[in-house]
Amino acid sequence: MALNSFGRLLTVTTFGESHGPAIGCVIDGFPPGMAITAEEIRAELLRRATGRSRHTSQRREAEDVQILSGTFEGVTTGTPIALVIYNTDARSKDYNEISRQFRPGHADYTYHHKYGIRDWRGGGRSSARETAMRVAAGALARKYLAERLGIRVRGWLAKIHDIELDGRFDEASIDDNPFFCPDPDRIEELEAFMHRLRKSGDSVGALIRARATGVPPGWGAPIYAKLDGDLAAAMMSINAVKAVEVGAGLACVGQLGTEHRDQMTPDGFLSNQAGGVLGGISTGQPVEVAVAFKPTSSLRLPGQGVDVDGQPVEVVTKGRHDPCVGIRATPIVEAMLALVLMDHFLIHRAQCGDVEPQTPRIPT
Amino acid sequence: MALNSFGRLLTVTTFGESHGPAIGCVIDGFPPGMAITAEEIRAELLRRATGRSRHTSQRREAEDVQILSGTFEGVTTGTPIALVIYNTDARSKDYNEISRQFRPGHADYTYHHKYGIRDWRGGGRSSARETAMRVAAGALARKYLAERLGIRVRGWLAKIHDIELDGRFDEASIDDNPFFCPDPDRIEELEAFMHRLRKSGDSVGALIRARATGVPPGWGAPIYAKLDGDLAAAMMSINAVKAVEVGAGLACVGQLGTEHRDQMTPDGFLSNQAGGVLGGISTGQPVEVAVAFKPTSSLRLPGQGVDVDGQPVEVVTKGRHDPCVGIRATPIVEAMLALVLMDHFLIHRAQCGDVEPQTPRIPT
Amino acid sequence: MALNSFGRLLTVTTFGESHGPAIGCVIDGFPPGMAITAEEIRAELLRRATGRSRHTSQRREAEDVQILSGTFEGVTTGTPIALVIYNTDARSKDYNEISRQFRPGHADYTYHHKYGIRDWRGGGRSSARETAMRVAAGALARKYLAERLGIRVRGWLAKIHDIELDGRFDEASIDDNPFFCPDPDRIEELEAFMHRLRKSGDSVGALIRARATGVPPGWGAPIYAKLDGDLAAAMMSINAVKAVEVGAGLACVGQLGTEHRDQMTPDGFLSNQAGGVLGGISTGQPVEVAVAFKPTSSLRLPGQGVDVDGQPVEVVTKGRHDPCVGIRATPIVEAMLALVLMDHFLIHRAQCGDVEPQTPRIPT
Amino acid sequence: MALNSFGRLLTVTTFGESHGPAIGCVIDGFPPGMAITAEEIRAELLRRATGRSRHTSQRREAEDVQILSGTFEGVTTGTPIALVIYNTDARSKDYNEISRQFRPGHADYTYHHKYGIRDWRGGGRSSARETAMRVAAGALARKYLAERLGIRVRGWLAKIHDIELDGRFDEASIDDNPFFCPDPDRIEELEAFMHRLRKSGDSVGALIRARATGVPPGWGAPIYAKLDGDLAAAMMSINAVKAVEVGAGLACVGQLGTEHRDQMTPDGFLSNQAGGVLGGISTGQPVEVAVAFKPTSSLRLPGQGVDVDGQPVEVVTKGRHDPCVGIRATPIVEAMLALVLMDHFLIHRAQCGDVEPQTPRIPT
Repeated sequence: MALNSFGRLLTVTTFGESHGPAIGCVIDGFPPGMAITAEEIRAELLRRATGRSRHTSQRREAEDVQILSGTFEGVTTGTPIALVIYNTDARSKDYNEISRQFRPGHADYTYHHKYGIRDWRGGGRSSARETAMRVAAGALARKYLAERLGIRVRGWLAKIHDIELDGRFDEASIDDNPFFCPDPDRIEELEAFMHRLRKSGDSVGALIRARATGVPPGWGAPIYAKLDGDLAAAMMSINAVKAVEVGAGLACVGQLGTEHRDQMTPDGFLSNQAGGVLGGISTGQPVEVAVAFKPTSSLRLPGQGVDVDGQPVEVVTKGRHDPCVGIRATPIVEAMLALVLMDHFLIHRAQCGDVEPQTPRIPT
Repeated sequence: MALNSFGRLLTVTTFGESHGPAIGCVIDGFPPGMAITAEEIRAELLRRATGRSRHTSQRREAEDVQILSGTFEGVTTGTPIALVIYNTDARSKDYNEISRQFRPGHADYTYHHKYGIRDWRGGGRSSARETAMRVAAGALARKYLAERLGIRVRGWLAKIHDIELDGRFDEASIDDNPFFCPDPDRIEELEAFMHRLRKSGDSVGALIRARATGVPPGWGAPIYAKLDGDLAAAMMSINAVKAVEVGAGLACVGQLGTEHRDQMTPDGFLSNQAGGVLGGISTGQPVEVAVAFKPTSSLRLPGQGVDVDGQPVEVVTKGRHDPCVGIRATPIVEAMLALVLMDHFLIHRAQCGDVEPQTPRIPT
Repeated sequence: MALNSFGRLLTVTTFGESHGPAIGCVIDGFPPGMAITAEEIRAELLRRATGRSRHTSQRREAEDVQILSGTFEGVTTGTPIALVIYNTDARSKDYNEISRQFRPGHADYTYHHKYGIRDWRGGGRSSARETAMRVAAGALARKYLAERLGIRVRGWLAKIHDIELDGRFDEASIDDNPFFCPDPDRIEELEAFMHRLRKSGDSVGALIRARATGVPPGWGAPIYAKLDGDLAAAMMSINAVKAVEVGAGLACVGQLGTEHRDQMTPDGFLSNQAGGVLGGISTGQPVEVAVAFKPTSSLRLPGQGVDVDGQPVEVVTKGRHDPCVGIRATPIVEAMLALVLMDHFLIHRAQCGDVEPQTPRIPT
Repeated sequence: MALNSFGRLLTVTTFGESHGPAIGCVIDGFPPGMAITAEEIRAELLRRATGRSRHTSQRREAEDVQILSGTFEGVTTGTPIALVIYNTDARSKDYNEISRQFRPGHADYTYHHKYGIRDWRGGGRSSARETAMRVAAGALARKYLAERLGIRVRGWLAKIHDIELDGRFDEASIDDNPFFCPDPDRIEELEAFMHRLRKSGDSVGALIRARATGVPPGWGAPIYAKLDGDLAAAMMSINAVKAVEVGAGLACVGQLGTEHRDQMTPDGFLSNQAGGVLGGISTGQPVEVAVAFKPTSSLRLPGQGVDVDGQPVEVVTKGRHDPCVGIRATPIVEAMLALVLMDHFLIHRAQCGDVEPQTPRIPT
């Protein structure tokens, strides 16, 4: 059923539990001939990793990714690329108490009902630890898109709780702060906010935006392989995501047709309400998504839960958790965007690899 | 590649163009033994159909659906169920002008770039006419869910342009008005609004909500077959959709963890911010989604476009169009919700069909 | 689950029962830009059709195939191509007796156990009538392979019962006789054999061979998408098939390694024991398969069966049946070979579309 | 594209090269609640392993399989089960000479043409080393089938070169000899044959048969998910396989219908020419397949090949090779049979999990 796989032609299968021996993935369908090293992948992993600032969980994994297959002398061969990271800093005893408890806002209750058994250590399979493998696989896709096709993928923190970060947009500065905030003038404010939040013991949500530039017109496919449909699935599958928007997103409800439809001139589109996708197919404009992350449910503030016998319990989550999972989500959103785009590159090449341009392309 | 299929175990493949000879679908994996007639399917189709009020397009298709296979003496046999509707009221000449033009906000430009050829009559494959087959397939899923599993699926218009319909919620009245509005006190206001809109020549967006009750805990699967991930893909694949929310949706960004996490007691959950899904698996609470539809791009108000030679053109869309596609979208959203749920029922039965309850179920 | 679909990137979904209203298929992923007419498809269908000689069943369907979608002005558009044939010459009353009986060698018993219900008219879904849609879809693939890629697919009757047709091989004459026999000198013998067989009331098996020439090296993929693995699945899925061979086939058991391994020289391979596939990937030599068809189980000679209550019955099959289903199987085998090859063309283009030749190609 | 995955609901994805760091697999969709240990899996692996008798390659891998995920306290949890074996006894220098040569009968030439790059060490991805993971995954399936469903899977060597092993059939003795020969009286003869063969430097083919007993009627599905179709794909995907037979197999060509059709009585079927499958669905009789393995192409006897520049070379294969790959193939064929059956158990439960018996089952 490939429940743990995504991608149509570029297929990524992930495995592993938060406190199991290892997490890993198999990337199938990747083209041959691209140089890639474990160090390059690890560099991407460290962008997402915990323990790199005081604003995130203090679990500190080496993220020492190994390439088990699919490359030869440092170059992809076209065979499946398996990546693995052994878990080294799991502290399962933090979770002993919840082995018989269902935490509110967690997958404990649902896994238990589904499978009749669950690995309760650190959230098991439902832990955000899994997202490391998305970032690892995404590292290959990002490199391919950039080097071969001139496509750049970039995400950032657009909003955290009620703080809109819609002022200055300095793309170059995004990686210079632990929040992936594009406005260098707001970092101090964010630091202070996170400091107060951590002290309060509560958590908050966040909105991540991402954009891909350089995508040519024509990627995506009717009807159930639409580029935006695949993006929605990819983003909603990330832990803690509750909403996905493309282009104008939810705001389209309040728009007029004359406002939303992106007019076209020989010199370019006059707007990008569509977010670079019309009829499920790319327009050549930047592909733009926004992804909403809920506040972390793992809190030291007590909450009402039940135990495996159905009895009420007061749940206090120990373990090391992020007060805002959205903070580390930017590299994950970027990875998913890159993987979906590369998948659609392959889909397009398969079906339409010899279609000659029939019509001029509008500059973007 | 099954680009035009969706569903993992209950797989629906649709085909057909707006002004081609017919539209249709093949439903594969449907369980044997359920009685179904073309008349029952048609009844659902008419809820979505155009030409039934002055607020929608005046194209009037008979929606005379035929069952070509998969039933015997009125009962499903387990073999693929093919449905077909011949198009009878297409007026292709309305589109002659746009055969060489790309309309703003339409898939004309993207299809042309992708395929080098397009069926420009009525939008071809990108027309919302395709959604009729979702409703047809959904009719079978809804019946199965209701009769066999006690699951009810219900959608409604929650917002149109800037009109929030969040007052009275009279579920029984939803089908009594052409808007699928749950508040019977607001119908007059909506009529007046639509009247003004039609006169203006412009169009507006809408937000549709849907809810499924009776879903047991345990449906959905990690990681890329999450119930909410599949819902996001299903909804975003509907024409004109720009955002999908589950539970609290976008609002989760502004929430605190203590506010969002749904506390549990032996008497039930204290809230449903999760929208009935945790870790991608159903909780037993109602599954809740919201879907944003953009304003129709087909307007008689002129807009700037380009033609196939890259020259600027003023586009005035003829043909018969909905001033708010969201108005007819409720049955489509319901259908997609039903199909995703039934798919996950089968997925769950496949892998966990013999899992004994290990823990009490919280009442919902 | 797409149980009724095959092909990875070129996906064909078939539907329909022998005596239902219609049979049909949806072809998804077909490239845009190829001219095709219903008449061309019908011409292929008539090669497989019954009622064209006295050696086959006398059911006489018009095979009046309609193209319901996916073409525009006679050219494929890249959207799903739906084909349908309405059944016109079904005689269901011939089957009344078996509505409560399980015929030996038929799928009656297995369908009934699986689904608890079955369409017993003419074998329902398990009828060879379904194979018409393989031939229809294959007609498009054959045209594409021939016109775009210079690949020719050709099948023939290699053996019927104990009659080996391994003498003269006159490819041009294959379509000149009702047996698809490549040796024009043996037609008389076959006519006489079939005449005796028909009189006896019994049936016989047959071996069909097929070959594709012009396939470049490099199609196919490790490990579970091997070209020969996909061919085996495609052929074994045809009704009545009990064995599939590639290249030397079963005979490889008795060979020595020095005999089987196809030596290579700059002037070409010295043999083709591999049947054009090594490691699941094409070598550039002709791709060669052989497919064994069992004798028809539908006989007027009485056989022991049971009824739905488990009671013994003497079964005498009425209806119109082929004394050797293998006779009409050549176009089906050709169609499946063409479809698998075209699928692998797309797979190869997707992953390796920009691989430059690194090494000279051996002439074949 | 999941080129390296097989199975519909029970999906196995393998990775790894013969001389890469490791081989492994991910098993997705496995039901929760079954106890399994690495030791149990390793026991199966050792049945297939080289270096255990003088009749096979002398490469001696520890087959020290690790379970990286998907179990908790020794029990499957329903999440993906990843298995890995690190390669420890690769001797890549044996292959230096062929790094620029294409060996006759090998995938060297085809991989090079496809990907433009290949891992030539030990055959890379095309090595039979990959089949270890089939056996590992098969170990889980065999245990599930046996413990939960009472299904037993058993394979054996039926023929090697021209030696038919069709005399005594002592199932219990199959695992007592290095050939998986069911006739204990023939072991001495086989030893002598292999001794002569090894001295000659040549290799031979073999035929492996396998049978599953206890399969209930009703598994399999029309049309492209037929049980025998899936078996054919599974078997043909094994390295060196050139033919697959179900039931009577190729011999059906020479049979009469009255001979082939398995008559049914209330006391059971009178024969099993069908090999336990009718219309692609199991009959309840033993499921029977035969699989033909070609002679090893890796020979120390010189053969003609070409190099990467297209120049003629005399190829002498060093490295450690099996003079008859079929000898170790029995556990692989058993594994594939078990995996396909378990997959179809899940498929059947998904679609027909609540079908009540409508008709008595014939004893088998």
